[in-house]
Amino acid sequence: MKTLYIIPSLISEGNKDLFFPPNNLTFIKNTEAFFVENLRTARRFLRYLDNTFPIDDKHFLELNKHYDNHDAVINLLKDNRYRTYGIISEAGYPGIADPGSFIVKKAHELNIKVIPLTGPSSLFMALSSSGLNGQNFCFHGYLPVKSPALFKKIKQLEIDSKKHQKTQIFIETPYRNQALFEMLTKTLQEDTLLCIACDIGSAREFIYTQPVKNWKKQKVDIHKRPAVFLLQAGN
Amino acid sequence: MKTLYIIPSLISEGNKDLFFPPNNLTFIKNTEAFFVENLRTARRFLRYLDNTFPIDDKHFLELNKHYDNHDAVINLLKDNRYRTYGIISEAGYPGIADPGSFIVKKAHELNIKVIPLTGPSSLFMALSSSGLNGQNFCFHGYLPVKSPALFKKIKQLEIDSKKHQKTQIFIETPYRNQALFEMLTKTLQEDTLLCIACDIGSAREFIYTQPVKNWKKQKVDIHKRPAVFLLQAGN
Repeated sequence: MKTLYIIPSLISEGNKDLFFPPNNLTFIKNTEAFFVENLRTARRFLRYLDNTFPIDDKHFLELNKHYDNHDAVINLLKDNRYRTYGIISEAGYPGIADPGSFIVKKAHELNIKVIPLTGPSSLFMALSSSGLNGQNFCFHGYLPVKSPALFKKIKQLEIDSKKHQKTQIFIETPYRNQALFEMLTKTLQEDTLLCIACDIGSAREFIYTQPVKNWKKQKVDIHKRPAVFLLQAGN
Repeated sequence: MKTLYIIPSLISEGNKDLFFPPNNLTFIKNTEAFFVENLRTARRFLRYLDNTFPIDDKHFLELNKHYDNHDAVINLLKDNRYRTYGIISEAGYPGIADPGSFIVKKAHELNIKVIPLTGPSSLFMALSSSGLNGQNFCFHGYLPVKSPALFKKIKQLEIDSKKHQKTQIFIETPYRNQALFEMLTKTLQEDTLLCIACDIGSAREFIYTQPVKNWKKQKVDIHKRPAVFLLQAGN
């Protein structure tokens, strides 16, 4: 039976012993063909795991700008030359907060066994470290960029959170983080808990949860720094 | 500054090199006081990581039946004898799909630095391996046990999934898994995608996504086996 490994990659620079179980490398070395979001990042990641990694022996399909290239994905999954596949996204856990899940979906359709390896995911590390409800939570991806749609969405997330004691999780492109933060503190109620999990896994990591009224009193610099936002209302 | 480590634990038996980055042990050895869901499981986990782990030098607060014992948690977090804390839940990632998040919440209130270690989480391994939408998803914990409340909830999750292209994730106590599966196949539409991720991380692991109409034709044995259920409608 063919196998597809879900291969978590780096979310920040650092010693690999901080992020990856040693056996991941064994599985990755056995992998014949890789679906990668970005070829350069994927090669760099494989060399980081093992600087003698036999990159030239492997087949790569880059999907960076071609997420709609379903034919190429299907052809590779059906290719009889390969028994073992891997999927590596740009950062963290493939298929979570990134558009790569259709490869896994196709694998299921083609009766390929899917096996997840362990590794870092900024979303779940943020949730676990937030102290907010991990028994009922939603991830919304990116919020609308512009007000009033953004304003309306934040309000709606807060009401929904209060009603169901639910943690709301979302992200933003790093250069808009500071603007989103300002909008959140302006829009949310004073006692709504807001968590910012920034630069997870790196030496600059900070993860901090407090009521909006406290965030307002504080200088926060998350400009161009990868961050996950979490909120829970009605505590 | 005091520090609280989020310490992922085992989700299934197996070689530790499959699940844990080597450096986790360094952080855990430095930890002076542990919040644990179950003392016996936690001790066994620490011995599994390192059979010479100095368990007797550490302080443990067991929360198994005392999740409401907020005073004990606060007292320990304030205790001047300790600088480094850890939180270990019964299985997998603390604070996700378990009730331990209030310890982390208190840590934030007391200005204790929270640092997540990397490790296995059955929820996100299931999501990533499902091929379902990982850019918009909700975790609902346990669904209602009895029909018609269960029937109504499943219907509602399906409609909501279709409307927002959202992945719905939920769990059940293992001895009720089979009954939930029957109810799902009876209630959901034929073309709704259902993923069952069972015994994640173990030799018996299977993760499989297919339309409900295909599940109906198949004999499935998930009785008393830990499983995560995921669905996405309207594909």
